[in-house]
Amino acid sequence: MKKNVLIIGAGGVAQVVAHKCAQNNDVFGDLHIASRTLAKCQSIVDSVREKKAFKTESLFEAHQIDAMDVTATKALIEKTGAKIVINVGSAFLNMSVMSACIETGAAYIDTAIHEDPDKICETPPWYANYEWKRREEAEKAGVTVILGAGFDPGVVNAYAKLAYDDYFDSISSIDIIDINAGSHGRWFATNFDPEINFREFTGRVWSWQDNKWTENKMFEIGKEWDLPVVGKQKAYMTGHDEVHSISQILKVPNVRFWMGFGDHYINVFTVLNNLGLLSEKPVKTAEGLEVVPLKVVKAVLPDPGSLAPDYTGKTCIGDLVKGVKDGKEREVFIYNVADHKQAYEEVGSQGISYTAGVPAVAAAMLVATGEWDVKKMANIEELPPRPFLDLLGRIGLPTRIREGDNDHAL
Amino acid sequence: MKKNVLIIGAGGVAQVVAHKCAQNNDVFGDLHIASRTLAKCQSIVDSVREKKAFKTESLFEAHQIDAMDVTATKALIEKTGAKIVINVGSAFLNMSVMSACIETGAAYIDTAIHEDPDKICETPPWYANYEWKRREEAEKAGVTVILGAGFDPGVVNAYAKLAYDDYFDSISSIDIIDINAGSHGRWFATNFDPEINFREFTGRVWSWQDNKWTENKMFEIGKEWDLPVVGKQKAYMTGHDEVHSISQILKVPNVRFWMGFGDHYINVFTVLNNLGLLSEKPVKTAEGLEVVPLKVVKAVLPDPGSLAPDYTGKTCIGDLVKGVKDGKEREVFIYNVADHKQAYEEVGSQGISYTAGVPAVAAAMLVATGEWDVKKMANIEELPPRPFLDLLGRIGLPTRIREGDNDHAL
Repeated sequence: MKKNVLIIGAGGVAQVVAHKCAQNNDVFGDLHIASRTLAKCQSIVDSVREKKAFKTESLFEAHQIDAMDVTATKALIEKTGAKIVINVGSAFLNMSVMSACIETGAAYIDTAIHEDPDKICETPPWYANYEWKRREEAEKAGVTVILGAGFDPGVVNAYAKLAYDDYFDSISSIDIIDINAGSHGRWFATNFDPEINFREFTGRVWSWQDNKWTENKMFEIGKEWDLPVVGKQKAYMTGHDEVHSISQILKVPNVRFWMGFGDHYINVFTVLNNLGLLSEKPVKTAEGLEVVPLKVVKAVLPDPGSLAPDYTGKTCIGDLVKGVKDGKEREVFIYNVADHKQAYEEVGSQGISYTAGVPAVAAAMLVATGEWDVKKMANIEELPPRPFLDLLGRIGLPTRIREGDNDHAL
Repeated sequence: MKKNVLIIGAGGVAQVVAHKCAQNNDVFGDLHIASRTLAKCQSIVDSVREKKAFKTESLFEAHQIDAMDVTATKALIEKTGAKIVINVGSAFLNMSVMSACIETGAAYIDTAIHEDPDKICETPPWYANYEWKRREEAEKAGVTVILGAGFDPGVVNAYAKLAYDDYFDSISSIDIIDINAGSHGRWFATNFDPEINFREFTGRVWSWQDNKWTENKMFEIGKEWDLPVVGKQKAYMTGHDEVHSISQILKVPNVRFWMGFGDHYINVFTVLNNLGLLSEKPVKTAEGLEVVPLKVVKAVLPDPGSLAPDYTGKTCIGDLVKGVKDGKEREVFIYNVADHKQAYEEVGSQGISYTAGVPAVAAAMLVATGEWDVKKMANIEELPPRPFLDLLGRIGLPTRIREGDNDHAL
């Protein structure tokens, strides 16, 4: 019997996941989507129906849920008969939704590391703070739990594993580079939830260098990269989930993450951060109202979902891997280029949501077909990368490899 | 019998007013101070006592008041026997405190135009929107109401009247230039209540040019001025209370106000303003909390009162007046230079508060001695300027005049 899918969340990434599940629903059973706001779920269901996205006719139902409530989430999993849960809600929900999955036996897939709302920028070891503490529990229950199946983390972890398996005898460094060379046409906006976006950058920057954690300030270390399609782009060293898992699982001595930022973004960020407006700690107004500044900043910024229609340009995300093969030094850049406008035309979301959502669906398809239904907890670099990357090539995120002057499809 | 004084407000300017009233209390009776927060009033009373600021021994009492409440304010005026009320509280209070004064017969003095909390940047004609509507009422009651007796408005209006009386047969233009060349050593701070500070600049800029109101955007028109002591400084055309009263009362065809801003201030202001964080209109957070962004910005910024101890450098504020005298073109710059550190040492406040507070006390002293006790409503340029400027010279804000290469004390 085909496995029913429950999508948690109703933002831009959930929109992509819903469309892609529908487009590939010959491997799935019924589809369901649930979030705090029923209307947002319903509007995603409507958009999928309008686009006639279903490959084969299917049930697709919207539900209201507070996914912090494990009991309610378990009840919804049971009611919908979901065997695969794709969690693309807030990063605060991961542990609760994972509990509901482990207790009901449904496979769990997410796209970002768990966050505690009271902390900013978890200190390393990231996955070991929450997710990996439950490895034994998942394995004992025989439940498939796939962590970080977005683009970064997610596809970049598969790129690292591909390099590890097929391109190198030993790897000295992996630099993951994430460039959004697109333009949304607004004075300022974040590409996903401002609260999550800014929280990535208000703490310390952690990287894995010479086999140990190294600490820097945000925007302290910048570097210009010359990348395919998007050209020369400045990116800054940033902490990111996959730095932890790749360094630990593949035993690579140097793993760094670089995110592209324009001077305008950095200026706005710097002003807000230096004034204390990105703080997650409440302040009291002169009138005595307690309020978290970051939540007010989120309230005044454009809804990331609203950016999609006007978004133009491309993203380029990939792994620059250096090491040795057959006694010779080698360097390859394994990457994908995605187009904002094309993403919007296909699924109604911009490229950032597209690159995060499509891999989660690919992972769900591989769980549905059994190839990745491993009955335990796994990060992406613990799973065979070829089926995942081949499937992504077919459903919208083809992999390319540049080595010297040679640039070719995987 | 000497007149008792009631100070409304307990910020940096109130601190200056309290110290200066005490230093010159041989012309006053008892002193009282009242604001929403009793502890702030008490701390000002304590600071005056610690500094042994009283010229002659006097009562100085702290009171709690909501000065929006006219009945309560009248009761306090009666209880304290105040005959002079110096209102240096929020600009939102002017009309309420003025009502209490007119109804009880106490003289009223303020330092800034009335503001409606629900509006930003009143459109011209400013004084005619609120204050001047009550001219007849004040005259009929025989109550002295002195409007805008700070530095700007205030002293700069007296400079204009001095130029009008003694230096010109006809004036073609008055450019009021306000430069703070001091440094508070913080990453960013406003020199007075951020809410009032930013509200001055989030709307349109109005100036009086060729005998009519002219509209510009904030930071649209900048000009470098070469001033005494502070040197070359960039200032931007800004709307300001006295542009209205000086143009109407002295019938000058061009009255403009220029405020000095560094690039850093402009950048921070631009980011906050473009994001909508300076808005006085409430927004709703994702959690449903209604909050006014500007009040949150105020809550995260340094308390202007806390800047004083580290403040160094000088202010230069004055009127550049052009016109004709005895058939010849003439140009004079009438100005004052104040020192932040000196102000702090004398009264425990920085220079911006000092220049705003001392003139209000000078006006109160002239009301107490009868010279300015005009029993009607008046802006500063309707009153004889010499006694005011002479007194200011004696109590801390001497006037200087630059004409060509000649720069001398008044």
